[in-house]
Amino acid sequence: MTGFPDNLKPSEPNGPSILERERKNSQISVTEIANHLYAHNGFLKRQSRVLSLLLKEPLFSKTQQAQLSRIDRFKLAVARGKLIRRLQDVHQWSLEDYKMAHYLVDEPTPYHLHMQMFRTTILEQASDEQKDFWLPKIESWDIIGAYAQTELGHGSNVQGIELQARWDMKEGEFVLHSPTLTASKWWNGTLGRMANHAVVMARLLLPQPAGDYVSHGPQAFIVQVRDLKTHLPLDGVIIGDIGPKYGYNTMDNAYMLFNSFRIPHSALLSRYAHLNPETGVFTKPEKPVAVYGSMTNVRANIVHDAGLALARAVTVAVRYTAIRRQFRDRDSLDPDSGELAVLDYPTVQIRILPLLAAAFALHYTGRAMYESYHRARHDIEQGNFQGLAHMHSLSSGLKSLCTTMTADGIEVCRRSMGGHGFGGGSGLIQLNNDYLAKPTVEGDNWMITQQSASHLIKQMRFAVGTLNSPPADETDAGFKYFIKHRTVARTFDILGNDEDICASFQWKASYQAYEVYHERVVKNSRWNNILLQLHQLSQSHAQLFMVKTFFDSLNSCPDMSPLTKEVLLDLFRLLALTIIKSESYDFLRSGAASPVCLDALPAKIQFLMAQIRPHAVNLVDSWMIPDYLLDSALGRSDGQVYEDLFHRAHRLNPLNKLTFNPNYLDDEIVKGTGENALGILSKM
Amino acid sequence: MTGFPDNLKPSEPNGPSILERERKNSQISVTEIANHLYAHNGFLKRQSRVLSLLLKEPLFSKTQQAQLSRIDRFKLAVARGKLIRRLQDVHQWSLEDYKMAHYLVDEPTPYHLHMQMFRTTILEQASDEQKDFWLPKIESWDIIGAYAQTELGHGSNVQGIELQARWDMKEGEFVLHSPTLTASKWWNGTLGRMANHAVVMARLLLPQPAGDYVSHGPQAFIVQVRDLKTHLPLDGVIIGDIGPKYGYNTMDNAYMLFNSFRIPHSALLSRYAHLNPETGVFTKPEKPVAVYGSMTNVRANIVHDAGLALARAVTVAVRYTAIRRQFRDRDSLDPDSGELAVLDYPTVQIRILPLLAAAFALHYTGRAMYESYHRARHDIEQGNFQGLAHMHSLSSGLKSLCTTMTADGIEVCRRSMGGHGFGGGSGLIQLNNDYLAKPTVEGDNWMITQQSASHLIKQMRFAVGTLNSPPADETDAGFKYFIKHRTVARTFDILGNDEDICASFQWKASYQAYEVYHERVVKNSRWNNILLQLHQLSQSHAQLFMVKTFFDSLNSCPDMSPLTKEVLLDLFRLLALTIIKSESYDFLRSGAASPVCLDALPAKIQFLMAQIRPHAVNLVDSWMIPDYLLDSALGRSDGQVYEDLFHRAHRLNPLNKLTFNPNYLDDEIVKGTGENALGILSKM
Repeated sequence: MTGFPDNLKPSEPNGPSILERERKNSQISVTEIANHLYAHNGFLKRQSRVLSLLLKEPLFSKTQQAQLSRIDRFKLAVARGKLIRRLQDVHQWSLEDYKMAHYLVDEPTPYHLHMQMFRTTILEQASDEQKDFWLPKIESWDIIGAYAQTELGHGSNVQGIELQARWDMKEGEFVLHSPTLTASKWWNGTLGRMANHAVVMARLLLPQPAGDYVSHGPQAFIVQVRDLKTHLPLDGVIIGDIGPKYGYNTMDNAYMLFNSFRIPHSALLSRYAHLNPETGVFTKPEKPVAVYGSMTNVRANIVHDAGLALARAVTVAVRYTAIRRQFRDRDSLDPDSGELAVLDYPTVQIRILPLLAAAFALHYTGRAMYESYHRARHDIEQGNFQGLAHMHSLSSGLKSLCTTMTADGIEVCRRSMGGHGFGGGSGLIQLNNDYLAKPTVEGDNWMITQQSASHLIKQMRFAVGTLNSPPADETDAGFKYFIKHRTVARTFDILGNDEDICASFQWKASYQAYEVYHERVVKNSRWNNILLQLHQLSQSHAQLFMVKTFFDSLNSCPDMSPLTKEVLLDLFRLLALTIIKSESYDFLRSGAASPVCLDALPAKIQFLMAQIRPHAVNLVDSWMIPDYLLDSALGRSDGQVYEDLFHRAHRLNPLNKLTFNPNYLDDEIVKGTGENALGILSKM
Repeated sequence: MTGFPDNLKPSEPNGPSILERERKNSQISVTEIANHLYAHNGFLKRQSRVLSLLLKEPLFSKTQQAQLSRIDRFKLAVARGKLIRRLQDVHQWSLEDYKMAHYLVDEPTPYHLHMQMFRTTILEQASDEQKDFWLPKIESWDIIGAYAQTELGHGSNVQGIELQARWDMKEGEFVLHSPTLTASKWWNGTLGRMANHAVVMARLLLPQPAGDYVSHGPQAFIVQVRDLKTHLPLDGVIIGDIGPKYGYNTMDNAYMLFNSFRIPHSALLSRYAHLNPETGVFTKPEKPVAVYGSMTNVRANIVHDAGLALARAVTVAVRYTAIRRQFRDRDSLDPDSGELAVLDYPTVQIRILPLLAAAFALHYTGRAMYESYHRARHDIEQGNFQGLAHMHSLSSGLKSLCTTMTADGIEVCRRSMGGHGFGGGSGLIQLNNDYLAKPTVEGDNWMITQQSASHLIKQMRFAVGTLNSPPADETDAGFKYFIKHRTVARTFDILGNDEDICASFQWKASYQAYEVYHERVVKNSRWNNILLQLHQLSQSHAQLFMVKTFFDSLNSCPDMSPLTKEVLLDLFRLLALTIIKSESYDFLRSGAASPVCLDALPAKIQFLMAQIRPHAVNLVDSWMIPDYLLDSALGRSDGQVYEDLFHRAHRLNPLNKLTFNPNYLDDEIVKGTGENALGILSKM
């Protein structure tokens, strides 16, 4: 009986032969595009080197992890975290190698924050003396650290955090104290169960001569929170994991309260902030914005990672919908015509192909953002803080745009695959659950657009005030051009000219900047009344940056083959025109697109999709995402979709080892075990 | 130490006092609206009666269920399914009471399909003789049944299913056989572990005189698949559960293969279909569409349920964002002004309040759809199939529109709550995961819009052909009006006149119907080339039905208090204008809205939101969704958000009972247990 399904094959045409044909029928070179995407940083070599080591370890097998309870899932993540670090020792991995291992295993291990926010914050905000003391312990994992900023009652509004660090001049110590329940730290990864140290943000309270205290706002302290031997919280510290979440189940996000807990003077991270222990005089950072360096770093990383996350979902969706057949062409006169590939339907293309284009756009955007961050960081190290405001604005706007695109895009891909997209074989379930943290963490995607818009208003104000001076930078140039020409009718040939597409985005973004500037600066409208316009303004500028970066990236590759370039340009056009279509009325109203063009958009978009369709499989192949990372029956590179779905169900699913007792009058749940409802209740 | 957090309170203002103030400050009556929504069907009385019984049973406690492994989660669901049925016996519950219990426990139990698709299909498609035999066994649960239609390789295209039912004239039996792997049944709920019977859709193959077989398409058979004693699959049947999915982890969705499995002549459901066992002559249903009755029923139910699902998410989002404070007003001159409620920000309102309006719209739409279905069903029982095409079209278009609105809306609500929306305390995680099945099941939301559009094209063709005859029905009247007036300029006062809002939707929907009719019928465009237009056409008409139904429902309530009516009308306006805004260009292009109106929309929408804001808490209260169903710290009716979040983390989270060993060089995972990676691997 077991033999029967073993001998069955899927109906024809089968997945492997379909993908083979798809790959042959497109003349673009997967290798050429892969090199174009990754050549600059050795990504592909690193990926294959690390992957081959991971594949040898049974602990990294993903086949059963979705079956586990939260506790077992977490234990597995701890074990994996340890093993990755051991592999790092054995193979002398660089930090980039170490990160690659996590990317491929595809889960935030409970050690994640130690090597990320904790280490980065010490690097950026600790004095040299503090670094000398802490960094060796951090690198060796002798201590495990976390970053504790967010509280139960306050996230985005960092100034509102309630945890107090009262300076006790007599003892020369700070007293950490949580005055309310909402002052409890909350969400802090790696801290719930794993870390014994943390960078803790607390409101610094300094005594006044009169005996009262004055707040100097949130400052960063490095604090030991658990005993190094017993790993139990120290007296005066209450910590725990906050429980199951949407995703991130392998992370021990924490709550933490302090009850008059004393820490030494040396706990204050003092690269920028100083408290004179003798005089009690506190010196604030030269530029308060400097302490947000690690957050800007994290945002830059998030933008950079958005492209690969979306590319994964698109890879699965393209391969599966190229293989999946559904319905004959109802207009076909050939009675023997087979069913059509799902990807041939415009209703499927419109969901997947613009996202394929978006994955490319996010790649270039992420790279540009990353380079921009490292330039700004370099300047800061040199004491030049000028680029920081622009960087902060750009990172806010792009973080909001890119993570929303990816989060929504993964789900669109999942739904585009119909029923099997809902199944575990899609490989998109954990990706979706985990990725949905991104639109919220490190600055909620709606909230942070204010930061970007605020900077843009300042820039427009500057442009208006210096209209006849030469442009200070690219944004200023765009704004001045707009101001000078805004009453002159001009048209943008968005259907026939790529430069005009970019110019159209520039025009619309400038139009909105001018409008918002007028509302806020000229008409003095209340900030909270124009939040919706501020959000749109930020989005428009982030879109402009993305579209222009996409176009410029293709044009700065002189040795790209003409066919490849044309296909990638089609992707650029598809992305840009899809955005224009979704905001048609705003483009029309600002004069960035004409009714004639807008009326023709749907046909043009459908034409571009038809152009791109034959290359879709090769385009996703060029992302070079390993099957191990995809962990998807639907997205397998060999196309064995149905064999794998059946394998996972019939051979790997442990539920099928149990025979249930369906008789509702019988307490027994699993036949022959006698286990009843009480047995289940005891596990809860 | 334990005492410390027990004595802490959240910072002021606290949740309970905020909700009390919100409730006092709105003059609309929760009771009045609740009665208006539910009075017609005794919903509220049933809810409180069933709820009070469920609350007594520890098995229905939801506090730990997110912690369980898939297997334990499934066992729990089996135990709950049995208990609900026993409660039904004890308390003599009606079918509506039984459904209410499932709604409140909020999970599809593994018995779900037995009482839904299985029972319904037998009721609708079995002959009287078959019903006499099967229904008593079904009602008593002596047998447990499922519905097996979808296959690994075919879902929406039912005609393409591969499972064969070959008629063996000599033995007087059908032979069920799966010729390929893709012929495996797939997704069939209740079948993977629980059912011993199933309605099985198979391609009926009848022998021809020449010895070959001819297919008569998919027919329904009732088949025993497991032994009633051992509960093991019968010889020749291979069944199992397909494994973890996005949601629905309490359901045993099945795969099932047959290896030349014989079933008697009486297995063919024969209310409409007959096979003469003597002559081998097969009579098809009079109207083939009749066999899709149960699917239309399911779609009607799905539309009906969409409103309550969205209302749950909106209830949580409104209460939490009314309580949550974030940032002071940056334009406030009062240095002591507190932080603002998140719900006071237009950027939060724009995400939640249109969904509050949508939840009301879906309620009225679902009710109208339900009534319409029961009228059509009644007509069919009388042998009148006339309403079926319209019903099928309406159910397709509305299923697509409403489930997409709800699925997307739940996620928008979740994200609107920032960090805590990602946490388990939101109460939206399982709701989201489970609900995401709805845009795909029972007809993928993109695919089925063709069915609705196809009917609309026929209707437009009819209207064009009978222009001077009196209108046949409401759609015909709208179409004829449009055809006659389409060259006459007219304006719709969408900002000032409610009837004009409806007329604007009617105009745009008719415009698109005419355009698509012209493409397909006059220009003979290929169906697959105009799929995007077909999708839009279906959406527009479903939106029109929803908007008109909303408006008509309010106007058919003569005894509603003026204030309540005005607030509900504001919700109607907000919903309608939000849709118009999101499709501004289409409304403009069709002449359904003018640039002047469209330019004024954002301000009008913001104005309406400000009007509705003070009533938001009372409006969601009027849905009367019990705290037990919400299972949400954020959405609690008493406002104890932070106390509950902390309680769940600090007192209920079992992970906090374990002390981990963070030393990466030590194999031990949990301190003192010695459990290492091998221990975890053994569970996988």
